[in-house]
Amino acid sequence: MRFAKITAGGKTTWALVEGDRVTEISGEPFGGWDKTSTKHDLKNVKIELPLMPRTFYCAGLNYAKHVREAANRRGEIPNIPDRAEIGYRAQSALIAHDEDVIIPADATGKIHYEGELVAVIGKKAKYLSEKDALSCVFGYTIGNDVSERTWQKMDRGLWRAKNADTFKPMGPWIETDVDLDAMETTVRLNGKADNHFKTNDMVFSIQQFIAEMTKYFTLWPGDVIWMGTDGSSPDIKAGDVVEIDITGIGTLRNKFVAEKR
Amino acid sequence: MRFAKITAGGKTTWALVEGDRVTEISGEPFGGWDKTSTKHDLKNVKIELPLMPRTFYCAGLNYAKHVREAANRRGEIPNIPDRAEIGYRAQSALIAHDEDVIIPADATGKIHYEGELVAVIGKKAKYLSEKDALSCVFGYTIGNDVSERTWQKMDRGLWRAKNADTFKPMGPWIETDVDLDAMETTVRLNGKADNHFKTNDMVFSIQQFIAEMTKYFTLWPGDVIWMGTDGSSPDIKAGDVVEIDITGIGTLRNKFVAEKR
Repeated sequence: MRFAKITAGGKTTWALVEGDRVTEISGEPFGGWDKTSTKHDLKNVKIELPLMPRTFYCAGLNYAKHVREAANRRGEIPNIPDRAEIGYRAQSALIAHDEDVIIPADATGKIHYEGELVAVIGKKAKYLSEKDALSCVFGYTIGNDVSERTWQKMDRGLWRAKNADTFKPMGPWIETDVDLDAMETTVRLNGKADNHFKTNDMVFSIQQFIAEMTKYFTLWPGDVIWMGTDGSSPDIKAGDVVEIDITGIGTLRNKFVAEKR
Repeated sequence: MRFAKITAGGKTTWALVEGDRVTEISGEPFGGWDKTSTKHDLKNVKIELPLMPRTFYCAGLNYAKHVREAANRRGEIPNIPDRAEIGYRAQSALIAHDEDVIIPADATGKIHYEGELVAVIGKKAKYLSEKDALSCVFGYTIGNDVSERTWQKMDRGLWRAKNADTFKPMGPWIETDVDLDAMETTVRLNGKADNHFKTNDMVFSIQQFIAEMTKYFTLWPGDVIWMGTDGSSPDIKAGDVVEIDITGIGTLRNKFVAEKR
């Protein structure tokens, strides 16, 4: 099933997406819900951010090719992580499908996309084994971990490099029925394929991350885990449109525009 | 004024604290609110976590003595930050006043406290000047940035070192009327003064942080900014009680206990 947060007729609500039709539901996808009699054409509703996560987790370097290409760019030896160590991103940076990524006025030209699979937690969980890890995952969505590489290099942390307002598009919806091993991630820049990788070809799997994280953290419904990206991005300019397509989920599309101050 | 989130008679609500009495309020402190006729003795209510922040900001190295002592411990040259660069902590780690900090079963003996002033944002804000920065601050509370120093040293990031479940006590309440320059932070270990510093003697002030942050981030009501700590902590053991006292706010008290698995 495919759950979207939508606004239609001035009202924001959860809805079930079936083909190009949406049906509003009462309740929450993680808890009890029922279909209502209110339906819309998908093209007539605004797709909202699916949710504001309680904790916003993000796997850092989790695809070998991305680690090698990033190291090469910096003239360093690639250092593939040997443990599944999770990081964080900021809720303040999240925007929805089709909302604009604003390139800050003082950013350099080094704005990059990162197409990522996002696991959405549906159940409170701690101490999960790898075998049971996916039992707490409700479904999957798509994230674009937009990055300003000059800031990433010069700052002490990833604060503005990864978390400037609008730098975290997420959506368009949450899909509960997926085949992880069949997934492919395709990134299109202005309609043209720019990057392509097997989505589940990770250094550490979702199961390994959840097992490691839940040794120390309680996961809560609505938490999200962004799983990292492969390959690398060209420099994105104002006016560019980035689409991230993951098999079985859909397409997250966002235009990049220059900040006006 | 002093706003606490309390549970009394099975009901969790905001309340106004006046001396040793609390009065339940309707609404939210950041928006409109009214006193109700329901009052309690402070000692008869459970103090809850004041709020779950939308984004949980934390200034890293923000007191000169703490930076020097941490560098000395590691045998490194102290490196005082030259810019106000913010970091993040995890919502999942927050607990309330008087709740127990659980020392993870596989933690080493290097558990430390960090007593911190916490600014609580009350208004949506972007592009604030230093002069106007405090206009978005609703009030102040206290945080204990509990840290596992071995993990902090050996891990790629601060994930479990700073964010293990229960590692972020915050409270007991939000005080709106403070004199920043008159504040002193005193940390007591098992009732005995262990650390003392001028709270506002920061490398970068709250105003400087907010001005720098709001160049890139929109602050939202309920966001919190932990302002860092001075000095250093001895190793904390199961059974220890840490109290952090900040002039004009109150005392955040938490017992440390060993995880049972």
